[in-house]
Amino acid sequence: MQLGLVGLGKMGFNMRERLRSAGHDVVGYDRNPDVSDSSSLADLVAKLEAPRTVWVMVPAGEATRATVAELGDLLSEGDLVIDGGNSRYTDDKVNAELLSGKGVGYLDCGVSGGVWGKDNGYGLMVGGDAELVERALPIFDALRPEGPREEGFAHAGKVGAGHYAKMVHNGIEYGLMQAYAEGYELLAAADEVTDVTAVLKAWTRGTVVRSWLLDLLVRALEDDPKLDEITGYVEDSGEGRWTVEEAINHSVPAPVISAALFARFASRQDDSPAMKAVAALRNQFGGHAVHKAGPTSGTGDVS
Amino acid sequence: MQLGLVGLGKMGFNMRERLRSAGHDVVGYDRNPDVSDSSSLADLVAKLEAPRTVWVMVPAGEATRATVAELGDLLSEGDLVIDGGNSRYTDDKVNAELLSGKGVGYLDCGVSGGVWGKDNGYGLMVGGDAELVERALPIFDALRPEGPREEGFAHAGKVGAGHYAKMVHNGIEYGLMQAYAEGYELLAAADEVTDVTAVLKAWTRGTVVRSWLLDLLVRALEDDPKLDEITGYVEDSGEGRWTVEEAINHSVPAPVISAALFARFASRQDDSPAMKAVAALRNQFGGHAVHKAGPTSGTGDVS
Amino acid sequence: MQLGLVGLGKMGFNMRERLRSAGHDVVGYDRNPDVSDSSSLADLVAKLEAPRTVWVMVPAGEATRATVAELGDLLSEGDLVIDGGNSRYTDDKVNAELLSGKGVGYLDCGVSGGVWGKDNGYGLMVGGDAELVERALPIFDALRPEGPREEGFAHAGKVGAGHYAKMVHNGIEYGLMQAYAEGYELLAAADEVTDVTAVLKAWTRGTVVRSWLLDLLVRALEDDPKLDEITGYVEDSGEGRWTVEEAINHSVPAPVISAALFARFASRQDDSPAMKAVAALRNQFGGHAVHKAGPTSGTGDVS
Amino acid sequence: MQLGLVGLGKMGFNMRERLRSAGHDVVGYDRNPDVSDSSSLADLVAKLEAPRTVWVMVPAGEATRATVAELGDLLSEGDLVIDGGNSRYTDDKVNAELLSGKGVGYLDCGVSGGVWGKDNGYGLMVGGDAELVERALPIFDALRPEGPREEGFAHAGKVGAGHYAKMVHNGIEYGLMQAYAEGYELLAAADEVTDVTAVLKAWTRGTVVRSWLLDLLVRALEDDPKLDEITGYVEDSGEGRWTVEEAINHSVPAPVISAALFARFASRQDDSPAMKAVAALRNQFGGHAVHKAGPTSGTGDVS
Repeated sequence: MQLGLVGLGKMGFNMRERLRSAGHDVVGYDRNPDVSDSSSLADLVAKLEAPRTVWVMVPAGEATRATVAELGDLLSEGDLVIDGGNSRYTDDKVNAELLSGKGVGYLDCGVSGGVWGKDNGYGLMVGGDAELVERALPIFDALRPEGPREEGFAHAGKVGAGHYAKMVHNGIEYGLMQAYAEGYELLAAADEVTDVTAVLKAWTRGTVVRSWLLDLLVRALEDDPKLDEITGYVEDSGEGRWTVEEAINHSVPAPVISAALFARFASRQDDSPAMKAVAALRNQFGGHAVHKAGPTSGTGDVS
Repeated sequence: MQLGLVGLGKMGFNMRERLRSAGHDVVGYDRNPDVSDSSSLADLVAKLEAPRTVWVMVPAGEATRATVAELGDLLSEGDLVIDGGNSRYTDDKVNAELLSGKGVGYLDCGVSGGVWGKDNGYGLMVGGDAELVERALPIFDALRPEGPREEGFAHAGKVGAGHYAKMVHNGIEYGLMQAYAEGYELLAAADEVTDVTAVLKAWTRGTVVRSWLLDLLVRALEDDPKLDEITGYVEDSGEGRWTVEEAINHSVPAPVISAALFARFASRQDDSPAMKAVAALRNQFGGHAVHKAGPTSGTGDVS
Repeated sequence: MQLGLVGLGKMGFNMRERLRSAGHDVVGYDRNPDVSDSSSLADLVAKLEAPRTVWVMVPAGEATRATVAELGDLLSEGDLVIDGGNSRYTDDKVNAELLSGKGVGYLDCGVSGGVWGKDNGYGLMVGGDAELVERALPIFDALRPEGPREEGFAHAGKVGAGHYAKMVHNGIEYGLMQAYAEGYELLAAADEVTDVTAVLKAWTRGTVVRSWLLDLLVRALEDDPKLDEITGYVEDSGEGRWTVEEAINHSVPAPVISAALFARFASRQDDSPAMKAVAALRNQFGGHAVHKAGPTSGTGDVS
Repeated sequence: MQLGLVGLGKMGFNMRERLRSAGHDVVGYDRNPDVSDSSSLADLVAKLEAPRTVWVMVPAGEATRATVAELGDLLSEGDLVIDGGNSRYTDDKVNAELLSGKGVGYLDCGVSGGVWGKDNGYGLMVGGDAELVERALPIFDALRPEGPREEGFAHAGKVGAGHYAKMVHNGIEYGLMQAYAEGYELLAAADEVTDVTAVLKAWTRGTVVRSWLLDLLVRALEDDPKLDEITGYVEDSGEGRWTVEEAINHSVPAPVISAALFARFASRQDDSPAMKAVAALRNQFGGHAVHKAGPTSGTGDVS
């Protein structure tokens, strides 16, 4: 089928490739003319036959909201917008209502798979009306991995459910990564273990902890066995924060996901104000030595 | 090759099957005569040709230590004992020294795979001398999953490294399970998401969080979509505790693994003494309503 | 000085007492005519001489916002509103701007002390313009504890700073309470310790952990040494949630405060969906016994 | 009464002062002749009249165990040894049995108060037989703070109970410090709050979070308002680790105390192996930029 695709960055570019390989007619738009198939959103819309389907794949937040609003002006009754970016699920209701006033349908779709998705396919979670989901199914089928549809695609529920599910997916991802990472550090800390990479690789088949993330960790360690090439500075891109905020909204205990999030925050601090306060307190009550700021920090604890 | 196998419980029984299917000559011993191939440890040893290899697969702790000690008395110079149970790695050095005094070799082997191992193969991590590992390789090759040896088997390091690696494996497992579980609870808490199982199933291909544990969670939910049939009472079998203790020994932060362990402890409490103390404190300073013990607990908070 | 006081609940009622004892002329308003000094907000305002100062002490959120808005209509240029409730600090900027359009000043004041404040005085943290703070100082001085002003009162910063500081105060409070509670449970769990209350009481002077909360815990245990009279069901009233949300906003690791919050969430669950998922997973991979829902739960672990 | 005091370091030296001020006859022994009243342990014992009481105040672990063993050789039936150091409570049973074989009594005493104890008195928790506690009561009364005995002293239970209680005391202390520290960081992070020290000082009277630790934090901030003089490198001296280990032994959830402990571990890492692993994973699946080790680290996240 024909699809308009807005946003041809790292994700959108690859998705266009995969969709075209599956025989779909994709008209892309990106601000970067080198990759764009159309000169503007209006041009994109003009190039599509009604009823149109436009997939939005731009950065979450302001960019997505603005794109959806502009599409609302350009599209016609019966058209369909799918937001496949990492939007917060609370944006979806707003977007859906905006478009619904013009008779334009809306679906939100969480997309997982990263740079590997072009070849492996993307895991998809969709929120919105069943008839709209049905309509876009050829697109979803082309994007998802081969195999049974339900192992790479779900109609998760109402508008917002797709992005909610993607948010939770990423929250889980934080927890999984941190669990492997703590285990890695423990293996590396033990005198007994002389080949950490070999141990992790031995876990990739047969064990309870086997997973794609584990495969990737082995891959990284085969390139750089002591991870000497990188520093332990870890960004976060929003979904982990939202997951913890939703845990709070729903009164759901989330000790593991929040611990993983806070470990990332801490990884980005040159020095921790909180730990300065703890050091100052120990010094106050116990006369414990503190590490003076500056190049010649002491090392002793005199407790 | 020929192998003596001590302990034919859930794990040992299946391992004997897998080894025999691979053409090995396994002589088993178990206190339960219905499954045993020999009438005693001495009889087992008598049935094996020197140099013997005896795999111990009995409960960790006292049972394993006693079995190894008894084997030390029965075996001869040049024989080999492999402890494949979930022993604490600190037991291995003791076992190895005990046997080494009699010229008997020792390997420790962490085994992962649960009830699925018979068919899928077991992930194996081994600690001990390279020449002993080499000698037992036919056994390891039969037990591990098909595919490249290094994706289901590792010579992890010195004596103790196999069990240390298995301990860390299980600690990671706690973290992974808790991460999925928190995500499951968050999906189940959202009005937007109408089909939780479908979402989790859609993650099983293509996504970043795909794993064997996720497959199992989907399987459990397909049987019992709201998990109505079970309660949230979760045992732990020791390795998670040891992992946190080793984190402490090595000064390694383990916030995720410890949070997963503590969630299990909490799951087994009818009422939490700590939370009683918090409730009592709130009542003291704020006059906040408490829930009186007994059948007619109030519900309000008057803060 | 003269003060209008809106909201004569548990906190406001006591504050009126304390202010009158200090010689201030307080005109109270509450929807409950039994405690009110005026028949309506309009009547309250009419009873005050310009320039008026009105302290709002009603539930945070909608009630406070509505009261401030109504006061905006009733008050005149040069008057002053102080929100002393547990409002979220983000409400303060909105309130301040609303009132500023009418020439009415605004201060936000975090108030701590609970039911003990009437006699002990209240800890106060104020946000807003210095000249407005100065103007209300006689009120703050009457409410705060005796002793040096700065040990019970702070001009914390701009509009919102008072409630932000109170929010953090309460977040800390969650962490402190949980720390004592975990320690209490550990003392109660040890065979060696035969008198838990005596131990906690021995900590109330001279030790590093002495505090008012500890005094209160001892008080609670002297009434009910095993806390048999209450259940471990702990409400939360919002500030702890906001604190974790602000930690996320500011990328500040808050493992302790969030752990304390999540422990409260967990304390209110009859059964945990997450732990059901963990139990289901263990059953899937290990054939571990689960506790069946229903009256005849099993108890064994067969790992 | 007469007391032998072994160990005249930071704690023991001050305790001798306090005991002498209270009129007790203290004979001290320390390896440092400048502070010692006796030339050897044997000389110390010789200087005391039977039945002797000897207080041991040396570093926990080997030094304490060796001192107790040597005292066992030197003392006579009816004498009494009190271990006032920070020994692990599991050492106490060993010490008590060793001495009991020679008719020498044993008490374990947790001592809290740090460098402030000389003037303020020390909080004391004692384990052992009631009659021995009774016998040493004049010493305990001199060391504890003024005020009711039970507010600075407890006979906590059997042998080991004193050190167990002290261990829990320190575990709680970790949690309390971390709670204040997280709150401090949150205050420092907010634009609205312009005077962090003033806020914390305003909490020292009347509020729910007032405590001695809070007083000390204010003191530290009054000296160094931004804690510029110290780094956030925080040692730990064992009791926090033991507390978490005991939580594990007793299956008691301790999320707050363990989070505080792990924050200290993390504070001492130049770079975190675990966070390197997380960064490597993100790079693998998402092509996320990593911070290369070395002086020209990048900064962007391209997710």
